[in-house]
Amino acid sequence: MSDISYLDVKPPYRILLGPGPSNIHPRVQRAMIAPLVGHLDPYFGTVMDDTMSLLRFLFRTKNELTFPISGPGSAGREASLCNLLEPGDVAVIGVGGFFADVMVENALRCGAEVIRVDAEWGRIVEPEAIEAALKAQKRVKLLALVHGESSTGVLPPLTEASQLAKQYGALFLVDAVASLGGEEVAVDDWGIDICFSGSQKCISSPPGLAPITVNQAALDILKRRTHRVSSFFWDLLELSNYWAYNCDKVYHHTAPVNLVYALHEAVALIADEGLEPCIQRHHRHGLALQAGLEAMGLTLHAQQGYRMNVLASVRIPAGIDDMRIRQRLLDEYSIEIWGGFGKLKGQIWRIGLMGFSSTEQNVLLVLFALEKLLAEEGYPVEPGAGVTAAIRALRKEYRTVALS
Amino acid sequence: MSDISYLDVKPPYRILLGPGPSNIHPRVQRAMIAPLVGHLDPYFGTVMDDTMSLLRFLFRTKNELTFPISGPGSAGREASLCNLLEPGDVAVIGVGGFFADVMVENALRCGAEVIRVDAEWGRIVEPEAIEAALKAQKRVKLLALVHGESSTGVLPPLTEASQLAKQYGALFLVDAVASLGGEEVAVDDWGIDICFSGSQKCISSPPGLAPITVNQAALDILKRRTHRVSSFFWDLLELSNYWAYNCDKVYHHTAPVNLVYALHEAVALIADEGLEPCIQRHHRHGLALQAGLEAMGLTLHAQQGYRMNVLASVRIPAGIDDMRIRQRLLDEYSIEIWGGFGKLKGQIWRIGLMGFSSTEQNVLLVLFALEKLLAEEGYPVEPGAGVTAAIRALRKEYRTVALS
Repeated sequence: MSDISYLDVKPPYRILLGPGPSNIHPRVQRAMIAPLVGHLDPYFGTVMDDTMSLLRFLFRTKNELTFPISGPGSAGREASLCNLLEPGDVAVIGVGGFFADVMVENALRCGAEVIRVDAEWGRIVEPEAIEAALKAQKRVKLLALVHGESSTGVLPPLTEASQLAKQYGALFLVDAVASLGGEEVAVDDWGIDICFSGSQKCISSPPGLAPITVNQAALDILKRRTHRVSSFFWDLLELSNYWAYNCDKVYHHTAPVNLVYALHEAVALIADEGLEPCIQRHHRHGLALQAGLEAMGLTLHAQQGYRMNVLASVRIPAGIDDMRIRQRLLDEYSIEIWGGFGKLKGQIWRIGLMGFSSTEQNVLLVLFALEKLLAEEGYPVEPGAGVTAAIRALRKEYRTVALS
Repeated sequence: MSDISYLDVKPPYRILLGPGPSNIHPRVQRAMIAPLVGHLDPYFGTVMDDTMSLLRFLFRTKNELTFPISGPGSAGREASLCNLLEPGDVAVIGVGGFFADVMVENALRCGAEVIRVDAEWGRIVEPEAIEAALKAQKRVKLLALVHGESSTGVLPPLTEASQLAKQYGALFLVDAVASLGGEEVAVDDWGIDICFSGSQKCISSPPGLAPITVNQAALDILKRRTHRVSSFFWDLLELSNYWAYNCDKVYHHTAPVNLVYALHEAVALIADEGLEPCIQRHHRHGLALQAGLEAMGLTLHAQQGYRMNVLASVRIPAGIDDMRIRQRLLDEYSIEIWGGFGKLKGQIWRIGLMGFSSTEQNVLLVLFALEKLLAEEGYPVEPGAGVTAAIRALRKEYRTVALS
C-alpha cells in the first residue's frame, strides 16, 4: 500500500438538462464495457467500418471520410479548421455566440485572416451580412457557421449560406456539435463540405468523440495544401488511412475503443428509433419546454423562428440569483442546467433536452422544479402554469402528428 | 425504424499482450459506467482534483499541472511539442524507433528545426551522441527522448540525458507512453521538465487519455512564447485554467468524464498495490517472459541491459510467417501480440505484459502458445523449454524478493 489516499468515486445520479453531456441509455453504458480489443484488431476494423456507416446515416451523407475524431467536439472543431486553413487564407466566420468565437480563435491560430460577421448573441447572422463579407474579399477559402449555437440557443438556416459559399468559391464548414441527431442536419442536400459534431449531446454517447464528415471537394483541397497541417494527430489525410473503408487500416494512433463501441450503440439507437422520429421527438419536447417557460412569464432569449429545439435559452428574471437557482436544482433535484457564457454570463439559463434526456418526464420535471424554486426565491408565478402549458403543447403536437 | 442495418457489437474476449491496450481490471470497467455528470459539475471537480493527485503520485512529481489530456497518448505527444516549440526553435531528438520518429514529425510541423540523433532501432541513443548534438548548436530549446520505445522494446537511461539538457540550457521532454506505471519513472528526481503517457498501457485504463505533467520551468517558458500555440485545444496555459487545482475551473472543452473515472480507478489500483511492488511485478514477469523466449532459442531484439520489462521484442525466426503466427494466436488463443513497425516490419514480434495483463498466467500461456504454434510451423523447439525457463526465473525472482 502506498501512502496516497484517494476518493471513492461515487458520482451522484444527475438528470442532465444542460447543453450536454446528456444522459446515457443503458444500452450505450453496456456497450462501453464490452470486452476491449486492440485498436488494430480485425474485429475492431469491422466496428470502425460499421460506425462510419452509421455516422453517414446520421449526417445524411455519402462522404466516405465520415468517422469520429478521437477527442471531444472541440477537437472536431480544431481538426476541421487546421486542415482546411493555411497561413494567409481568408476565412469568413459568422459569429453570434461563444462557439463561433472559438472558431475564430482556432482559425487565427492557424495563421488565417479572419473576417468576422458578427450578430447579437441570440440572433442569427443574416445571410445579407455574410454575402457582403464574401463579396468584399478577393478570395475566401472558407465560410464557417455554427449550427446550433449552444451558448445562445440559436439555430440558423444553412441552405442560403451554403449557396453563397458555392457562389463565391468558398468551402462551407458547419459546427453541428449541439445539433446533430436532434435537429435536422442534411450534409449532402445542404451542400456542406465539412461538418463536425460531439458525441455527448443529441447523440447521447459519453463525451470524448467528435464525429466528422468531409467531402471530396474538401479532401481535394487538402491534397493541394502548400504548408503541411501543423497537427499530425489531426491530419485528415493521415486519419483517412487509419479509418480507411473496407481495406487495410494503417496505424496512426490508438482510437478510444470503448468510446467507439458506445458511439456505435448510441447511433444504432437513433437508427432503431428512426432519424426523423428522433428529430420529431426533440422538436415536440423542445416546443413544450419553451411553451412552459413562456407560460411562467419568462422570456426566451433566442430570436423567434430560429430557436433550437434541443436547447432553450431563457432570460433570468431580475432579482433572481443565477447560481443560487442552479445550485438548488442540483442539490434538491439533481438536475443540471447551465448558465450563460461570456457576454451572456448571469443573463440566461440554458436548458437542454438532448438525446436520451429528451423525454416528457424531463420537460415536466424541470418546469415544475423551476417554478417551485423561482416562487421560493420571490419570483411571482401562477402554480402549474408552466407544466399546464407544456401539457397543452404536447397534446397539440401529438394531434398534429396523428393527423399528418 | 430506419432502413440502415448495423452490427451487433459483440467483441471477442482478447488476452491483450501487445504494446497496449492492455486488459482492464473489473474495478476500472465498473468505474467507467459510474453515473455521468457534467464536465463542470462540482462533483466532477473533486474527481478532477483527485485524479491530478493520483497522477502526481504515479509520475513521482510535485508539479501542479499534472492531468490527463483529453486524447490518446499521441495527443499527449503533440500537445507537449506544440506548446514547447515555436517556429525556428531548435530541438534535439533522440531517434531509435517509430515513436521518436513521430516526435520528429510533430516537431517539424511546429516549424522547429530538428536535430536528429539516430540510433539503430533496438539500441539506445548514446549520451555521447546526444552531447555532441547539443554542443554543435548555438541554442537548443528542447531535448526529447522516448522512454520505453515500444516499437523496439528499448528502455534508455534518462538521468545522464537530463543532466546534459540542463548543462546546455534545454528543456527535457520524455515520452513515457509505454513505460509509466510499469517501469521506473521519476519525473522530479530525474529532472524531467515535461512528460506524457497513455492511459491504456501499463496504467491499464481504456484508451483515450494522455496523462501529462509540466513543471514550472516549462510553464515559465510557455508564458514567454512569441507565437501563440497553433492549437487552442492543447494550449497548456488554457488547459491549466480548466484543470486548476482546488479552485474555480474555467470551461475549455468537455472532458471525457467516463474515461477520467476509469483512469482515476486504474491509478487507484496501482496505489493500492503500491507503485514499487507494481513495477516489481512488471519486472518479474518481464524477466520470466524474456528468459522463456531465449530458452526457446529465440533472439531478443533490444540491446542487452536496456530492455523494457513491460514489452519484449523478439526476432521472428527465419522461415516463420509473421502474420500467420499472429493470426493463429488470435484465432486459437484469442491472444493479441504485435509485429514490428516501419524498419522492423516482419522482423520482430512485440509481446507486452502491461498493467492488468502482467500476470504469471499470461507469461506461461503466451510461451506455451508460441511454442506450440512455432513447432507446428516447423521451427524446432524443445517441448516445455520456454515455460520451464520462465518458471525458473519466477522462482528465482521470488527468492530474491524474499531475501531482500
